[in-house]
This record gives sequence, C-alpha cells and structure tokens, in this order.
Amino acid sequence: MESPIVLGEKEWLACCGSVRFAQEMASITPFSNYEEALDAARDIWFHKVDVNGWLEAFAAHPQIGESPSQTHKSPTSAQWSKGEQSTALATATDSTLQELYDWNVRYRQKFGFVFLIFASGRSTPEILAEMKKRYHNRPIVEFELAAQEQMKITELRLSKLFSANTKAAHTADM
Amino acid sequence: MESPIVLGEKEWLACCGSVRFAQEMASITPFSNYEEALDAARDIWFHKVDVNGWLEAFAAHPQIGESPSQTHKSPTSAQWSKGEQSTALATATDSTLQELYDWNVRYRQKFGFVFLIFASGRSTPEILAEMKKRYHNRPIVEFELAAQEQMKITELRLSKLFSANTKAAHTADM
Repeated sequence: MESPIVLGEKEWLACCGSVRFAQEMASITPFSNYEEALDAARDIWFHKVDVNGWLEAFAAHPQIGESPSQTHKSPTSAQWSKGEQSTALATATDSTLQELYDWNVRYRQKFGFVFLIFASGRSTPEILAEMKKRYHNRPIVEFELAAQEQMKITELRLSKLFSANTKAAHTADM
Repeated sequence: MESPIVLGEKEWLACCGSVRFAQEMASITPFSNYEEALDAARDIWFHKVDVNGWLEAFAAHPQIGESPSQTHKSPTSAQWSKGEQSTALATATDSTLQELYDWNVRYRQKFGFVFLIFASGRSTPEILAEMKKRYHNRPIVEFELAAQEQMKITELRLSKLFSANTKAAHTADM
C-alpha cells in the first residue's frame, strides 16, 4: 500500500505563491495520491483564493525570459521556473529576448501584473505571439486567463512534487 | 448653445475612486454632454483601468450600512454615498443593521474587498438578500459583478455632477 504523502506549507507555496492556497492545502494534507491533491488544489484556487491571492501568486513569478532572482522566496519555485522556461530560452535570440522584454513592460503597464503562461515546451516565438494576442484583452478577461495559466503551472509542479515524494517514500520502504 | 463642461481629476475621483479612471477622464475633458462623458467613463472603467484600479475604487466606499469616515479622501463622494444609502438606512432596524454588519465581515473575509451595490432606492432587507445570494459566487465572478455595480454608482454620480454643473453654467450665463 502506498503511504500517504504529507507536505507542508513551504512545499505548497513552491507550487503556487498564494499564502491562502498553501495554508488551505497544508490544512487538508495528507493526500493519498496526485489526483486527490489536484482536485483539492483546483477547488481552492478557483473557489477560495480571492483576487488579492491571485495577484500574490502572480507576483511570485519572474518575468518570462528572465531568471528568477537569487533572493526568490521559494528556491524550489525558482528552480522549477527555470526548467519550465528551458525551451523558450533555447529558442531565443538577442532580438527576440529584447522583444519579449519590451512586451513584458507594455503588458505590465496595461494589466498591472506579470505576463503568465504555461511555458513548458513552448518556444520564444510562440510565447511572443501569445503575449501580443492576449495584450488586446480586457483587464478582467486577462486576469482570469492568467489564473488559468497559473493553475496549469501548479498542476505540473504538483506532479513533480508527488513523483519526487513517492520515489523518496519507496526508497525509505526498501 | 450649451458651454462644454470642464471637470478636473478631483471631481472624477468623487465619481469613481480609481486614480487611473480620474486621470483618463480629466485628460479627455471637456465633454459636450452627459452621454459623451458616460461613454468615455464606461470605456475607461471596463477596458483601461486594471484590476488593481478596480480594487482601489472599491476601497473608496464605506461598508454598506455605515457612514463614510469624516476623513474620507473625497468629501463629495462621502456625501453622495450617504444619499445613496438613505432608503437602506430608513428601512433598517437594529437587528437588520447588525445582520448587515455581520455579513459585511463574512463577505470581506471571503472576497477581500467591501460589498458593493447600487443602493439607491433599495431597502435594507433587499440589500441583505442580495448580499447573501452573492456570497456564494466564485471570487472572480463576484469581482466582475462588483465592478458592474461600481459603474452604476459612477453613472448616477456623473449625472449629478453634470446636472449641478449645467445649472451653474446657466446661472453664470444669465
């Protein structure tokens, strides 16, 4: 039988930078498996975390195309973020990186938060095209879209967290 | 011919407490009439003010059932707010006022901002029923609803502003 996986606030915060999200997840842990944690995470993110919590989670991300700062609140989140952007960085040139930077500035000026996208496996030109398209959205529409992207990022990170902890538990059982 | 009405940032801020809203309105003033100002106000509020600006405007309102503080940033807004709540206050009892207070606390805990409603002509029992119904909304749904209520309040205040200034202009013409 698989042992239930117990995770603390710090681990949940690495998946999604809203304190409310992390506290709620920590309060109902342990989960028997990834699917159970995923259901809880979706419910908390879309039904319980308020709009201030969404902004707080968005603010925990580096600007796309940039490395997370060394002083990032969650080293795990910073490391994951780097991995999620690896395709984008591998496909970037000096000029597309500059364009990404310029559009990030415009985006933040219009919407008041960082451009969020589930970047795994996406090239820099793809990300740029998406950013230019989304720039025309109404602020409230873009806000909800960003929250959906955040959830996709959270899901990927949750799966990494569970796979790492399942391996660790199995190793401990041997 | 009617003289165009020139209004400054302070007046627009009394209609809607988002600085971005007030600045944008002030930058395209004068308007020849109320309808022209209304079209601009709707466009700015729903397309240009970001989610932080929405939260800023919400924060400029007193809790429903309570008087605006004496130190309110905009005395005009505080005075209008009192008038808009006059039906609610006339139909309130000690117990419904207490209930309104308790629900305000619950609402703010869930959503992170004050309960906003276009209160003109609405009784306290009507407002309470609406608050209890809206409490079950997802945070993002309620956020957009609150922004629509804010727009209704802005529209009423704009009409007061225009009618006051039209009268003043006519008096000056005589």
